[in-house]
Amino acid sequence: MPLSTDPAELLHAARAGHRGALARLLSMAEGTKAASVASVAHSFSGSAHVVGFTGAPGSGKSTLVNGLVSLIRSRGEEVGVLAVDPSSPFSGGAILGDRVRMQTHALDEGVFVRSMASRGALGGLAAAVPNAVRVLDAAGKPHVLIETVGVGQVEVEIVETADTVVVVLNPGWGDAVQASKAGLMEIADVFVVNKADRDGVEETVHDVNSMLDMAVTQTEWRPRVTRAVASDGTGIEEVWESVCAHHAFLLEGGGHRLRTRRRARVSDEVRELIRERLVRVVRDICAGPGFDVCIDEILSLERDPYAVSDCVIHDAGLSDLLS
Amino acid sequence: MPLSTDPAELLHAARAGHRGALARLLSMAEGTKAASVASVAHSFSGSAHVVGFTGAPGSGKSTLVNGLVSLIRSRGEEVGVLAVDPSSPFSGGAILGDRVRMQTHALDEGVFVRSMASRGALGGLAAAVPNAVRVLDAAGKPHVLIETVGVGQVEVEIVETADTVVVVLNPGWGDAVQASKAGLMEIADVFVVNKADRDGVEETVHDVNSMLDMAVTQTEWRPRVTRAVASDGTGIEEVWESVCAHHAFLLEGGGHRLRTRRRARVSDEVRELIRERLVRVVRDICAGPGFDVCIDEILSLERDPYAVSDCVIHDAGLSDLLS
Repeated sequence: MPLSTDPAELLHAARAGHRGALARLLSMAEGTKAASVASVAHSFSGSAHVVGFTGAPGSGKSTLVNGLVSLIRSRGEEVGVLAVDPSSPFSGGAILGDRVRMQTHALDEGVFVRSMASRGALGGLAAAVPNAVRVLDAAGKPHVLIETVGVGQVEVEIVETADTVVVVLNPGWGDAVQASKAGLMEIADVFVVNKADRDGVEETVHDVNSMLDMAVTQTEWRPRVTRAVASDGTGIEEVWESVCAHHAFLLEGGGHRLRTRRRARVSDEVRELIRERLVRVVRDICAGPGFDVCIDEILSLERDPYAVSDCVIHDAGLSDLLS
Repeated sequence: MPLSTDPAELLHAARAGHRGALARLLSMAEGTKAASVASVAHSFSGSAHVVGFTGAPGSGKSTLVNGLVSLIRSRGEEVGVLAVDPSSPFSGGAILGDRVRMQTHALDEGVFVRSMASRGALGGLAAAVPNAVRVLDAAGKPHVLIETVGVGQVEVEIVETADTVVVVLNPGWGDAVQASKAGLMEIADVFVVNKADRDGVEETVHDVNSMLDMAVTQTEWRPRVTRAVASDGTGIEEVWESVCAHHAFLLEGGGHRLRTRRRARVSDEVRELIRERLVRVVRDICAGPGFDVCIDEILSLERDPYAVSDCVIHDAGLSDLLS
């Protein structure tokens, strides 16, 4: 039987465990069908605990996530993984990570791994990732792990929308300082000093704790600093315990803290959707036949670019924007 | 006599050599008075040769630009310099570069140096830099040099709007490869292998030439590859000669090549101005009182973010965008 293209039917099948339906739904959620997928999936969403992982390339995020997936599965729970690479439409990193995980979890029906790479300036991951999370959530995955390739601005923006943010560091002078520079101190709920069998682990743990002590904004949650050697499984349980402790903290007292987090996430998503729409409008306006004429007028010094941009916005019927 | 705040009066004074007037005009061109400054300056613009400099931090761009300024001044010509740092609103790099140049050229009325740093997400340098170039051009500087701190995406976008693009490399394995990765091969009109007293200069020159040979798109202009030791002045004349040769090439046959370049620059500027306007609209829309109510509806699963973003756009009177 061929797979449906109706989001509601696909979601029904995905919730019953049909992997092909979930895969198709995720593809639709990233593309031109994003809105219709969201409209079907949103009312089934909100239950999953969303955990974001960031850290420098090579810090061992993929290995750590892989270990956590094994742990979660050993407890009989399902998990969805989004491997996000904003740096390239041809993502070696994300695809490789996928393959490594595929080897371990390929035959496991309880794990669903999805790679998402940049689709150029217009197809923003900032809007696509939350919609993919929504689909995995609505499909019934109680845990959704988001892993990014690096610590660039886009990656940090994506990861900080998670309920719980895990920052992966390595032992060695300066790693904590680099994390601080990248703005990770402010967003981390759990620090993992991975490759903790190497020299310098105590110094790095100490550095992170010192920075947390110095942080101007004291919040109710003190980020936990854990050690791990993800490659041999050491410390994986402690990492997951810290993640779950943060989740429990968010749920305390009726879950107002979780609601505050998700409010920020949803606000960002709406802002991003509006922004994407407007960017598309600009692209269309500037592809119109009148645009070249305007540019000629600027080049012959008849009109300046500011006057022309006003005029183009006016001609596009968006004069209200000028007020 | 206090300085005027009228752009036309300020431009008149700046063209007569009044440095304070030019400084104020540049400040206005970056800020909320950008449009009125452009409307006055644009009709006086178009004469300056705009040269952009990019390359990795530490490659010696500032020293090279400083040397070129000395050379230009020794020939009795005036020059404006824009030192652009998109990475930080508190730009150590750009300010330092400024100070170094100030020491050499502080008392020279024929040199005008201006630092421009990032002003956050809204105040885009991509729109501010062309307007600053316009002002220096209209003030009568025959040469405008734009120097960026690094080779990030924003920096490359800023520099590639110049008439002539100079890419600064250093000797050593891999520098040419790095330049290629950063997309500099496509935008360079002149390569400078700076610090050419170090080992590996011939290999780097060879690497660059090999890459130019392999380039799929053969254009009429073959980028020149020059050697320099900017710190002691070696090769500065050859660099400037190459820059001037490229300028002459652009002006050949009626200047249609220069016009093509500037058409691209002006198109980008208009697109950027429209984009900035729309970003501001999104910010205003999402700061409205109805926005929080919408977010609550999403959190209680009544409506999804896509439906809400449509609705917000509609309420803002921008329904035409939905078609």
